[in-house]
Amino acid sequence: MSNAGELVDLYLAAWNEPDEDRRREIVARTYTEEATYVDPLMQGAGHSGITAMIGAAQAQFPGLRFRLASEVEAHHDHTRFSWELAPADGAAVARGTDVGQIIGGRFGTVVGFLDQIPTS
Amino acid sequence: MSNAGELVDLYLAAWNEPDEDRRREIVARTYTEEATYVDPLMQGAGHSGITAMIGAAQAQFPGLRFRLASEVEAHHDHTRFSWELAPADGAAVARGTDVGQIIGGRFGTVVGFLDQIPTS
Repeated sequence: MSNAGELVDLYLAAWNEPDEDRRREIVARTYTEEATYVDPLMQGAGHSGITAMIGAAQAQFPGLRFRLASEVEAHHDHTRFSWELAPADGAAVARGTDVGQIIGGRFGTVVGFLDQIPTS
Repeated sequence: MSNAGELVDLYLAAWNEPDEDRRREIVARTYTEEATYVDPLMQGAGHSGITAMIGAAQAQFPGLRFRLASEVEAHHDHTRFSWELAPADGAAVARGTDVGQIIGGRFGTVVGFLDQIPTS
């Protein structure tokens, strides 16, 4: 359980890291080399693909940050958690729930779903 | 979307089918041959494994049925939906959310999470 929680912390840190080199380092600690990410709005594969995908998302939502909005549930090698996207100390403009499969301590797949569509 | 909805209808029909032969037929229409199912309480693989797993669950919760409790969301080849377990016309005793990957019209994987723990 704590491993899943630490992995989700890294996962959100990657979404919030504006520096591409630092973000790629965090992505490499978060995802396996062959990892895939997919949600209704975007998808990416591998460390470079996921790093670039996050950069494109950050450009769409300047000034907003991702934060954990649930417990991190874990069973077998699967994890579920919810996040929200919000300005610092502000109300969320989007919410979602991600389901990840952990392989050797890193995410092999993440599938995201939106619970509240981005309104900005 | 409609394909995902029809697949979820079959999925729930399998959970509610007490006859093992009929359940296995529904399972074969719902899951690929190599499919895996896993949630916090049980797991099964392949048509025979999933058919037996559902039978064991039914024995634990006699008189209860699974019913859809959300929209069926779908993006790319992924689907999310929530269900509840309840007596006919009664209040739910358990709720969960399942995430499935669809491969060639059937579930290749289903990962389940519990939103309300069974209380019976």
